[in-house]
Amino acid sequence: MLPGIGVFGTGDIVRALVPFLRAKGFRVEAVWGRTLEAAENVATELNIPFHTNKVDDVLLRKDVDLVFIICQPDLHAQIAVKALGIGKHVLCDRPAGLCQLEVLKMVHAAQYYPSLISVISHGLRFLPAFMQMKRHLEAGYVGAVNVCDVRVHCGSMIGSQFDWMCSHLMGGGILTMVGSHIIDAVSFVTGQRATRVHGMMRTFTKSTEKINGIRWIDSDDFCSFQMILDGGACVTATLNSHVAGGFVQEVVVCGSRGRLAVRGASLYGQTHTDEREQLLHDGSADDLTHLANRNDNSSARVNSLLPQPYLQGLFRLVGALKEAFATGDGEHGWLKEPVSSAATFEDGQYVQAVIDAVKLSSASRQWEQVTVASDENELNPLMTRLNLPNINMSSLDALSQAPTNRPQPAPTQRKTTATSESHLPWSFATKH
Amino acid sequence: MLPGIGVFGTGDIVRALVPFLRAKGFRVEAVWGRTLEAAENVATELNIPFHTNKVDDVLLRKDVDLVFIICQPDLHAQIAVKALGIGKHVLCDRPAGLCQLEVLKMVHAAQYYPSLISVISHGLRFLPAFMQMKRHLEAGYVGAVNVCDVRVHCGSMIGSQFDWMCSHLMGGGILTMVGSHIIDAVSFVTGQRATRVHGMMRTFTKSTEKINGIRWIDSDDFCSFQMILDGGACVTATLNSHVAGGFVQEVVVCGSRGRLAVRGASLYGQTHTDEREQLLHDGSADDLTHLANRNDNSSARVNSLLPQPYLQGLFRLVGALKEAFATGDGEHGWLKEPVSSAATFEDGQYVQAVIDAVKLSSASRQWEQVTVASDENELNPLMTRLNLPNINMSSLDALSQAPTNRPQPAPTQRKTTATSESHLPWSFATKH
Repeated sequence: MLPGIGVFGTGDIVRALVPFLRAKGFRVEAVWGRTLEAAENVATELNIPFHTNKVDDVLLRKDVDLVFIICQPDLHAQIAVKALGIGKHVLCDRPAGLCQLEVLKMVHAAQYYPSLISVISHGLRFLPAFMQMKRHLEAGYVGAVNVCDVRVHCGSMIGSQFDWMCSHLMGGGILTMVGSHIIDAVSFVTGQRATRVHGMMRTFTKSTEKINGIRWIDSDDFCSFQMILDGGACVTATLNSHVAGGFVQEVVVCGSRGRLAVRGASLYGQTHTDEREQLLHDGSADDLTHLANRNDNSSARVNSLLPQPYLQGLFRLVGALKEAFATGDGEHGWLKEPVSSAATFEDGQYVQAVIDAVKLSSASRQWEQVTVASDENELNPLMTRLNLPNINMSSLDALSQAPTNRPQPAPTQRKTTATSESHLPWSFATKH
Repeated sequence: MLPGIGVFGTGDIVRALVPFLRAKGFRVEAVWGRTLEAAENVATELNIPFHTNKVDDVLLRKDVDLVFIICQPDLHAQIAVKALGIGKHVLCDRPAGLCQLEVLKMVHAAQYYPSLISVISHGLRFLPAFMQMKRHLEAGYVGAVNVCDVRVHCGSMIGSQFDWMCSHLMGGGILTMVGSHIIDAVSFVTGQRATRVHGMMRTFTKSTEKINGIRWIDSDDFCSFQMILDGGACVTATLNSHVAGGFVQEVVVCGSRGRLAVRGASLYGQTHTDEREQLLHDGSADDLTHLANRNDNSSARVNSLLPQPYLQGLFRLVGALKEAFATGDGEHGWLKEPVSSAATFEDGQYVQAVIDAVKLSSASRQWEQVTVASDENELNPLMTRLNLPNINMSSLDALSQAPTNRPQPAPTQRKTTATSESHLPWSFATKH
């Protein structure tokens, strides 16, 4: 039987996802929101039987066996670790957490409960175009991989209200939202991981027509980063949210014998002996959106926060989860095979390690090593350089009890004390 | 009356250019080649009355008033400086020279003879799409410029024989060949210049089916570079010659109010109030190739060495030169106005300064300042770091007398003496 689902989050992605979950046969039993009002609104709109603003109230429900953590990234680790501890399967949205230290805690929890499913929502792995690109690369279509050239153009990711997407301390920004998918997809298709990275991040739009008060936007809206992979390949990626007019994503992998390119959901290729480019997979028929019975009114924001390739990928990951549970008469009540290519928490940690290094590089203006740590103490020097908080897991209770007063992300280097909610505007305003 | 032309160079670009020059009414009087045989072949093929392998024999001809320097970059400065000294107008192919020190000598010569035309072949400035992009940017179409995002995809630029394109010491590589145009075009359309740059250059293809002897390819076939402009904008450019299947160039400029994009020869734009992208200039009718009566057999190599946008731009620059001379009853026998937007030697020096800084950055793995020097002594520390030769101008005579024994580009750091021709293979082979 399919597990009952508890959803953490009240954003537009949740509005797109819940109908799809139901279409796949899942029961959505409960929804958590940061405020009771937000939770109630979504519960009413999507007809979810239970809503709350207390994390435990979802996690402790007997009818919830699988949780979808689709809320702001600074809460991912706390909820995921607690959920696994209570015995729930976890799908966590990208980026896995705020920084590698947080994700490492998630990794340790996942390792401690191997009978539970724990995956990150890197859905590009499940898009046919990327699956076929991986297969073609493994079969030597391009020969030795030399260059990966990635470009993502999209419109602004900032909504009409100040929210976590505006704040880099809460995990917002195009590097975490889009770059995380790219970093994962590149390592998925090439089988190589980044050893050194260079990054240039910028926040050009610090205010908008609607966000122009004392809170400023300080999450990155432009990021160019380069990676050297452990197999010697070079990756260059441009993430640009200043290009109005739709989402454009192209991932080109070049090698000694030819090249492959995923544009949108389709795969193209050309070897040095081909006269012209070949269409290797036509992704136009891969759209699963119709299954979600989506209200098209909600699609504008979803398209900017979760553009088509990522939404389609997430849907396919959900399909894989269904298969894992539906055919699950294995050891743990689910089969590993359907989700065997999903991004694990370890994969999420690697992605987070790259993100951290790109952020460091953008500040230090130097290439930075990518360090994937196995011990929390290894990360202390990195955390100090990142100026990010070592979030105390015990803060989860405070979070559950009083979500609007939960401890804030720690201050940047220039500030010496943690800021309370009322001081946040100052901390954002002085970031740049 | 239009000036008679002397051409330096025997490559495929010369084969494309000469018919176009004639179509515009120019007389091509003489051609110089590095070897007498090469010069003779081109002279016969293109029906040029005089050919030689001695630079002076072209420069001293009375029927030659304008020289086109379209040969390998390590010879540009020597020929250009001498030509101006003898009183000839100069069009010099990009990159202006091997390094900024060389181009500075050209700048000084151009300043010393202001009555002579001295321009670099940065023809994108004359393409309608880029001219209109510049006008739209000046008119505030995108608001404040934040991001320039440039991507050039093309096939290999290496021919069937080892030549200067294979050698970074002789000025080959995708950064000098393509990047030079991009660096110039970005500063032309935005009116901003780079202050700091970061670069990652690679040579993935060190040998080919036909170049696999003791001489290795060491010119860059992939380059990703970033620039911070003096107005605060960020530029990221990816130059990738591993993408078989035609030349793709896209220059996107994003600002606070919208964005502009030149794709191929057409200009597109979208402001934040536009529903969809607008076609602002259709470049499909801009093709001038038919005027050149080109033999299509020669187009393959030309397309890789001088792709359509650059060839079209060069043709338009030639058209501007014709106008300057044809209407020229001005002070110097030519009018400044038609060529007023052409790239000067000073512009070429700026481009070279950026190229030098990108090369330095790729080696140092750090951001590098762009230093545009006015005095040769300023450049000594830079030259030392670049490991490039301070070419002695007196070597020009040796060059004229015995082209196959001319002094070679100086050794890299590891070598302590200049290498003779017979030692070149070793110097290339050990570069990486």
